[in-house]
Amino acid sequence: MRIVVALGGNALLRRGEPMTADNQRANVRTAARALAPIAREHELVITHGNGPQVGLLELQAQAYADVSPYPLDILGAQTEGMIGYLIEQELGNLLPEEQPLATLLTMTEVDPDDPAFSDPTKFVGPVYDEPTAHALAAEHGWVVKPDGPYWRRVVPSPRPTRIFEIRPIDLLLRAGCVVICAGGGGIPTMFGSAPEDANVLGGVEAVIDKDLASAVLARELAADVFVMATDVVAVQTDWGMPSARDLASATPEWLAGQEFAAGSMGPKVQAAIDFATAAGQPARAVIGSLDDIGALLAGTAGTQVTTDLLEPVTYRTPTQGTIGRSTTSDRT
Amino acid sequence: MRIVVALGGNALLRRGEPMTADNQRANVRTAARALAPIAREHELVITHGNGPQVGLLELQAQAYADVSPYPLDILGAQTEGMIGYLIEQELGNLLPEEQPLATLLTMTEVDPDDPAFSDPTKFVGPVYDEPTAHALAAEHGWVVKPDGPYWRRVVPSPRPTRIFEIRPIDLLLRAGCVVICAGGGGIPTMFGSAPEDANVLGGVEAVIDKDLASAVLARELAADVFVMATDVVAVQTDWGMPSARDLASATPEWLAGQEFAAGSMGPKVQAAIDFATAAGQPARAVIGSLDDIGALLAGTAGTQVTTDLLEPVTYRTPTQGTIGRSTTSDRT
Repeated sequence: MRIVVALGGNALLRRGEPMTADNQRANVRTAARALAPIAREHELVITHGNGPQVGLLELQAQAYADVSPYPLDILGAQTEGMIGYLIEQELGNLLPEEQPLATLLTMTEVDPDDPAFSDPTKFVGPVYDEPTAHALAAEHGWVVKPDGPYWRRVVPSPRPTRIFEIRPIDLLLRAGCVVICAGGGGIPTMFGSAPEDANVLGGVEAVIDKDLASAVLARELAADVFVMATDVVAVQTDWGMPSARDLASATPEWLAGQEFAAGSMGPKVQAAIDFATAAGQPARAVIGSLDDIGALLAGTAGTQVTTDLLEPVTYRTPTQGTIGRSTTSDRT
Repeated sequence: MRIVVALGGNALLRRGEPMTADNQRANVRTAARALAPIAREHELVITHGNGPQVGLLELQAQAYADVSPYPLDILGAQTEGMIGYLIEQELGNLLPEEQPLATLLTMTEVDPDDPAFSDPTKFVGPVYDEPTAHALAAEHGWVVKPDGPYWRRVVPSPRPTRIFEIRPIDLLLRAGCVVICAGGGGIPTMFGSAPEDANVLGGVEAVIDKDLASAVLARELAADVFVMATDVVAVQTDWGMPSARDLASATPEWLAGQEFAAGSMGPKVQAAIDFATAAGQPARAVIGSLDDIGALLAGTAGTQVTTDLLEPVTYRTPTQGTIGRSTTSDRT
């Protein structure tokens, strides 16, 4: 099988942990142990997030006055290097020497006409008081918005439309390479960012949702299974209520009628819908815990999303202590 | 032909320029214009330096107190991401859409028994006064040494022995991909850095000479030509003296009898010798200016180094204003 696994943020850094190199390496090592058996048997692509890592690079750059902080495309490229290195090295240590690995820098295209550019909504970087936020906005050309009692920079989070490195990734997979790519959703780029030439590709000050970008990647690679590994064992309906239930399986059509929290489970569900409804392939998306990776692939754990179901939705017994994030406000 | 081009530091940042993202992008664009015609006709691998970029990441990390600065292997990986991205994007803008490009994270192996580890000599990071240097050395486990009137951290610069990603690089080249890799000489790694397991690959606090690593890469890829693009038009003997002469060609045996400055032309000449004497291939190394890339490949500019010469050395008329760096102290 050809499998794309999108690693959640907790595969790199657990909630509340200091962002040291050692902590991140230790977490990556744990993730690598779960992934190694899959890498031995299947064509495997690994993607990952980068939010906290970009945040740290920004804070460090702002703390050093002599050189202006780099834009988000360059910081994203730096984190692809760093995180890709840790994954390649730790996973490589668990695989036979004859199995090659490759970490590819990945650029993702977004549409200059995406509505996200006229209404940036994604908070990035530290919090400020209101006057400081306005001063920084004037200095750097930022948009700032209130975030609770503080103010923060906001940037657009446009939809990913294309991954540029599909050909080399496909080639490497066919040759038996484990491929690590599309970190942080890929480096945000678009044509026409230099207004004088619509054919020039340039970087964009934006962030791309890594699950939505991974869905584009998985679709363009014609993957058999697209796994979003996260810190919950399955998608839940009625999250936090006595009626909460784990979804065992759902069709994309059924899921599209539900509502999930915009910042967390929402993009994963949307990515699952995007992938499972892609034309011309019997595609299956799965959301669940990396600890269950074997069962996620076997179809016996997590939430399985595919058009190929007898019923639009099936449930599992709710799991004690599971942290889900769905709501039922739009249940039809 | 299969060609490896190692870009000198001036392809990214010219002497005295502020290290902004815009300056680096503009310089990369200039280099991309020189490389694009080569990419259209040949199998092309591009490598590059990263010294100033790692230095900036270190300074930024030290300016921000909340998270300990990352080790040199991780900073190297970050710069491979950043610089590789700029090269891939700018060169991609000059190539037809059907030509794929790929930037590969690259790990380079060094030998734990390399004598460089017992005598670190490579200055990295900012200058300090002596008491501060000793305090930092005690805090971080650094070795510090005097550098003129100041003190600085020194790290080992061991010889590169192996590039791990040769198989995917070779595969991509055969398929017509332009490959960008081995930035900064590759991420320094070695087996046994975790003493409990000699089979575990880990990062090393070291720097690797990018020309020596590019020679290993070029040799393992069986490249036809290995070009070191720098800010001189050729290697000179008697540099700075009225008798200064540009070398048009030289055998590796002849070059091995000369002496060149350790920090600048020395490693390039050594890399040329390493590559040109590799067994089993009619290999040619060239040192010269990126502006002359076509002539460097045609054999009519730069210093051509190969065993396949009628005479051990030939000269060109000295070029007005050429900045060479060789000395003649060991002329035989």
